[in-house]
Amino acid sequence: MGKIVDIKFTLKRYNFYKPFHIVGSISSEATNIEVEVTLDSGAKGYGEASPSFRVNGERVEALLQFENFVKETITGIDVKNYRKIFDITDKMFATPSLKAAVQYAVLDAFSEEIGIPVYQILGGAKDKIETDKTVGIDSFKNRIEEAKSIYNKGFRVIKIKVGENLAEDIEVMESIFEVTKGAKYIVDANMGYTHKQAVEFIKKVYNMGIDVSVFEQPVLANDIDGLKFVRFNSPFPVAADESARTKYDVLRLIKEEAVDYINIKLMKSGISDALAIVEMAKAANLQLMIGCMSESSVGINQSVHFALGTGAFNFHDLDSHLMMKEEIFRGKFEQKISEIIPKE
Amino acid sequence: MGKIVDIKFTLKRYNFYKPFHIVGSISSEATNIEVEVTLDSGAKGYGEASPSFRVNGERVEALLQFENFVKETITGIDVKNYRKIFDITDKMFATPSLKAAVQYAVLDAFSEEIGIPVYQILGGAKDKIETDKTVGIDSFKNRIEEAKSIYNKGFRVIKIKVGENLAEDIEVMESIFEVTKGAKYIVDANMGYTHKQAVEFIKKVYNMGIDVSVFEQPVLANDIDGLKFVRFNSPFPVAADESARTKYDVLRLIKEEAVDYINIKLMKSGISDALAIVEMAKAANLQLMIGCMSESSVGINQSVHFALGTGAFNFHDLDSHLMMKEEIFRGKFEQKISEIIPKE
Repeated sequence: MGKIVDIKFTLKRYNFYKPFHIVGSISSEATNIEVEVTLDSGAKGYGEASPSFRVNGERVEALLQFENFVKETITGIDVKNYRKIFDITDKMFATPSLKAAVQYAVLDAFSEEIGIPVYQILGGAKDKIETDKTVGIDSFKNRIEEAKSIYNKGFRVIKIKVGENLAEDIEVMESIFEVTKGAKYIVDANMGYTHKQAVEFIKKVYNMGIDVSVFEQPVLANDIDGLKFVRFNSPFPVAADESARTKYDVLRLIKEEAVDYINIKLMKSGISDALAIVEMAKAANLQLMIGCMSESSVGINQSVHFALGTGAFNFHDLDSHLMMKEEIFRGKFEQKISEIIPKE
Repeated sequence: MGKIVDIKFTLKRYNFYKPFHIVGSISSEATNIEVEVTLDSGAKGYGEASPSFRVNGERVEALLQFENFVKETITGIDVKNYRKIFDITDKMFATPSLKAAVQYAVLDAFSEEIGIPVYQILGGAKDKIETDKTVGIDSFKNRIEEAKSIYNKGFRVIKIKVGENLAEDIEVMESIFEVTKGAKYIVDANMGYTHKQAVEFIKKVYNMGIDVSVFEQPVLANDIDGLKFVRFNSPFPVAADESARTKYDVLRLIKEEAVDYINIKLMKSGISDALAIVEMAKAANLQLMIGCMSESSVGINQSVHFALGTGAFNFHDLDSHLMMKEEIFRGKFEQKISEIIPKE
């Protein structure tokens, strides 16, 4: 038992508590696709695609059209042979969030079939992880208040979105620092700076005595030379996010010595490439963080189990489900503020 | 249930049917260490180290002394969290065959605990694999007869050991070709040639109209420039074996574009680095084969499940157990001549 007998796609809409603004994008809702895999035993597995046009060029209405194709491609295969399905779905490289959802739904079904949680199928390297929470772009005053509120709730890693206004970003960093002493910061420019602006920003922050744990994607995705320039001129580690979608991207970043960090997101890479990137980064002594798009608890569950299983990440930016209204929490994990542990 | 309560090492001696001769080494027996992991549930897992002084600098009597250390290090850990144990045992980099045996015994115990074969824990990518069989260095006449006998038994991939006598090696290739038409050849020089001799050899073989599937380790392990020279002057794919022990070795080979192929052996890399090398090679578009040292059916079982699970290999050189006398066959697989399938 373990053969796939059905695949179902369901469109899901989740409203954010408030609009989320990063460089070049403001969203007030997430439109995701839930993938349900049913086995001959009756067991079901769930995955979620949170498509990104900005990062992956994906449109949710287009992804929905893949339902029959996916069904035809993998029905009849036993989920115990999950790498067969990974190999087949690797061809869906132009729709990586859907590839992730299908691959994870298969792992989840395998997990249900054998009664072993996914994080242990993947190796069970960690028993708990800690997530950050994110301060989006907003008015100066709102950014400081948001940071303070996150800090007061108990989060000790704060992600700060910058990249639209260099001068204000620097002031924001200074003011956030004053109200969140002891926190760690991941600063994400989402490709908003030029390489020279990025270096100006990070040096000024350094000179203010602020310690930045990771400086994410300062420049455009395809500006690998720019990334490398920032890396070698930044006192803090520089991460690739939009520049690092596939394992092939990461191999190039390694060869060009362009970054210190990779931000893995299942929505960019699927499970298969994410596993490859983990191994490659460790061999090349790169550091790793894991991030998200706009996943609900179903989609964040994927990254939680991936992170617990591989144990590969210094930082976990898995907070999208905290930003949205969900009727029921559906993660197979437990969360207390920033701390996430596997479900008993 | 799943916690390790005991680890036991047992010295095992296996006699070969006849002495096995490769460049710089003749052996008539294998002296291996069997590793038994016992869980609190009573389930047991088995791994085997087949140490190599030539490749790894290992001495079996020294490895035996690690028993208490390994016991102290991993007793109490749940095998369901096998990556924790991989991380701990990765520090045993100077005794890679032992690292492989311990890591595999843990996977085997996990497999017994949950009733899922190891190859499916690793992904179940393939349902069967085909192994080659090897012609060692011997008199001219014996080499031809051995090749003919292997071919007549039904093997269609023949590994040919060369590297001690360039002129005779070329004649041997020609004569083997005549009696084994339709077979594929993996030619392994085990570091025996200079880079210029290697190119002379492979070009002459090419000019005789013989197709070589893989030309393995023509030059010394540390001669990466030499490997690259051979690669770019050989009409056939060139593989690193002795040059590719760890994932760090492989990253360097990738960066230097030194080879077309990697020969993964669990005895050089353990399970953890072997998994990393699989992912790295696929990202870098290198081809893969899997080989062995002098494992019995217990040790070959490890590579069989690894190969079936990852599905990563074009060629399988898993024939050491066929060369030795074993009272009972202990692999969790079935073999019919060259074809290997998982045990029902």
